Amino acid sequence: MYNAKAYAATSATSPLSSATIVRRNPTESDVQIEILFCGVCHSDLHQVRNEWSGVMPTIYPCTPGHEILGRVTSVGSAVTKFKAGDLAAVGCMVDSDGTCPACKEGLEQFCPNVTLTYNFPDKHLGGVTYGGYSDSVVVDERFVLHVPENLNPAGAAPLLCAGITTYSPMRHWGVTKGKKVGVAGIGGLGHMGVKFAHALGAHTVVFTTSPNKVEDALRLGADEVVISRDANEMAKHAGSFDFILDAISADHDINAYISLLARDGNITLVGAPEKPLQVAAFGLLFGRKSLSGSPIGGIPETQEMLDFCGKHNITADVEVIPIQKINEAYDRLLKSDVKYRFSIDMASLKSE
Amino acid sequence: MYNAKAYAATSATSPLSSATIVRRNPTESDVQIEILFCGVCHSDLHQVRNEWSGVMPTIYPCTPGHEILGRVTSVGSAVTKFKAGDLAAVGCMVDSDGTCPACKEGLEQFCPNVTLTYNFPDKHLGGVTYGGYSDSVVVDERFVLHVPENLNPAGAAPLLCAGITTYSPMRHWGVTKGKKVGVAGIGGLGHMGVKFAHALGAHTVVFTTSPNKVEDALRLGADEVVISRDANEMAKHAGSFDFILDAISADHDINAYISLLARDGNITLVGAPEKPLQVAAFGLLFGRKSLSGSPIGGIPETQEMLDFCGKHNITADVEVIPIQKINEAYDRLLKSDVKYRFSIDMASLKSE
Repeated sequence: MYNAKAYAATSATSPLSSATIVRRNPTESDVQIEILFCGVCHSDLHQVRNEWSGVMPTIYPCTPGHEILGRVTSVGSAVTKFKAGDLAAVGCMVDSDGTCPACKEGLEQFCPNVTLTYNFPDKHLGGVTYGGYSDSVVVDERFVLHVPENLNPAGAAPLLCAGITTYSPMRHWGVTKGKKVGVAGIGGLGHMGVKFAHALGAHTVVFTTSPNKVEDALRLGADEVVISRDANEMAKHAGSFDFILDAISADHDINAYISLLARDGNITLVGAPEKPLQVAAFGLLFGRKSLSGSPIGGIPETQEMLDFCGKHNITADVEVIPIQKINEAYDRLLKSDVKYRFSIDMASLKSE
Repeated sequence: MYNAKAYAATSATSPLSSATIVRRNPTESDVQIEILFCGVCHSDLHQVRNEWSGVMPTIYPCTPGHEILGRVTSVGSAVTKFKAGDLAAVGCMVDSDGTCPACKEGLEQFCPNVTLTYNFPDKHLGGVTYGGYSDSVVVDERFVLHVPENLNPAGAAPLLCAGITTYSPMRHWGVTKGKKVGVAGIGGLGHMGVKFAHALGAHTVVFTTSPNKVEDALRLGADEVVISRDANEMAKHAGSFDFILDAISADHDINAYISLLARDGNITLVGAPEKPLQVAAFGLLFGRKSLSGSPIGGIPETQEMLDFCGKHNITADVEVIPIQKINEAYDRLLKSDVKYRFSIDMASLKSE
């Protein structure tokens, strides 16, 4: 074991502050990474503040962060895919059983024995796993990804959650050239959805409640932008979408979007509004439409996504912050005051 | 034109009573059918009582009925698929444009210019179409189906709506041998769902609120029956279903069923509860599950379904009634007091 610098919360109401956590010494199958950047996901805030106490109560101290990007500093003797100096990344998962049907299909996110990157039982050291708000992490090579060197590292970090979460359902539901694809909600997730839909060749339509996001949506790759509060604008697109990515975390009228789907169209939720969605059955019936949800993606698909990003030079739009500004960043996150993701520059941790 | 005997309602509050309607003389592409049996669908009642006034206001007099089975009495000169004496059937549609993408795929139910069997503009005679509570009907051969002679005709009539409505989503979502399939709600639709799931080779589990339906569900082909109000019983099946057919027309907790789906599982609504369904997003996210809806099926699939029924000797469980008992049957339908579909013996119309 060794000590690593980190930021951690000691209770649901404490700000994050400087802390020391322990990491295991790399085993033969482990990769040790010096963390350069870590994206800030809304899940980090939920976990730190114990807002999921019903399903995933927080164990303190809690070091969140699952959009981890860094340089490999050392590898175990059995590691074959990485070497010191490689640009590498870790996302929401750090382990799984490797033997269940989901794992065998490369869908580790559905493994019943998955280990998430933070606040999950740590098989090696006991206690819980600690995330990427830290200067170093040690992860089994099966859960380490290669990052194309051409990508801006600060912007590449959020690909590990916001990226794969939006890329995976688009691939699953067949977003390609010739399809008409909507992206509802332009935040950390939605803005990645726009970039992917565009890069996959789809006719991409952004839905937003904010007229002041129109210009930015076009810049991100939208072919059209619809102000979702304008019923006339919405009606023009009735029955025309093959796929809609619903990245709205606030309560909203899902039926308005279902009515925009073409026959056999699908709308996939990647945000999770607090209240149940009110779904009118008739809207699904007439058109054999479907509503689904999707969480992150498996390791093979995450690597595919990173390679796709390398090829198309796609990264998240980030505001880089020092770790000392993380509490302020959380406050701003709650006001959607970020375009479109915070990325923590971990060099700032050296001064702690 | 010629006169046909029928039963019709003259207002939303009138009982159905004896009436005379006009039918067109068969054109060269038409098939004329002497109706032997007509199933009673809940939609008939909704339409007759103008309960869908918002979307499909009823034009009176209204003769409903879209589960029509009979003998061909004559065919137009250009008809090639039918001849006098054939056992034939007509379902919910009697025409479509034949040129749209949906029609070209044999999915006439999604044609924007579909003509439904009753209460829809009649292109030939003006006014509206009249359904199967009648002694005769004339329909373009494209919308007439062959019925295997081995099937009991009274029980075969409901295949044209209750049958195809449950068969189609099972085929669409890949119900086959080796799959675990649930059917929620054992009424006119649900009981057909059980028969199809069983005949398609799936491990079939019935969900019902009524312990007194257990024995019958097993008789219909269920491998297991779960009392849906028993949370422990439900929990035993968590995360295990590939597909669930939701044929519950009353309000119900859809999340309880979503939690029973396996990864990538689908639940399809064929009933349409009045109130919106309350869908918790997390239930769909963790498992990439989907909720969809499905209405009837296209003509090629309806023929496939009838042929499948012929092969497996599948018909609806019906209570045969004379047309004179139709109003009483509607009252009983509202109390779910029928196992599981009324089928009107049209011979009873001769005495009117």
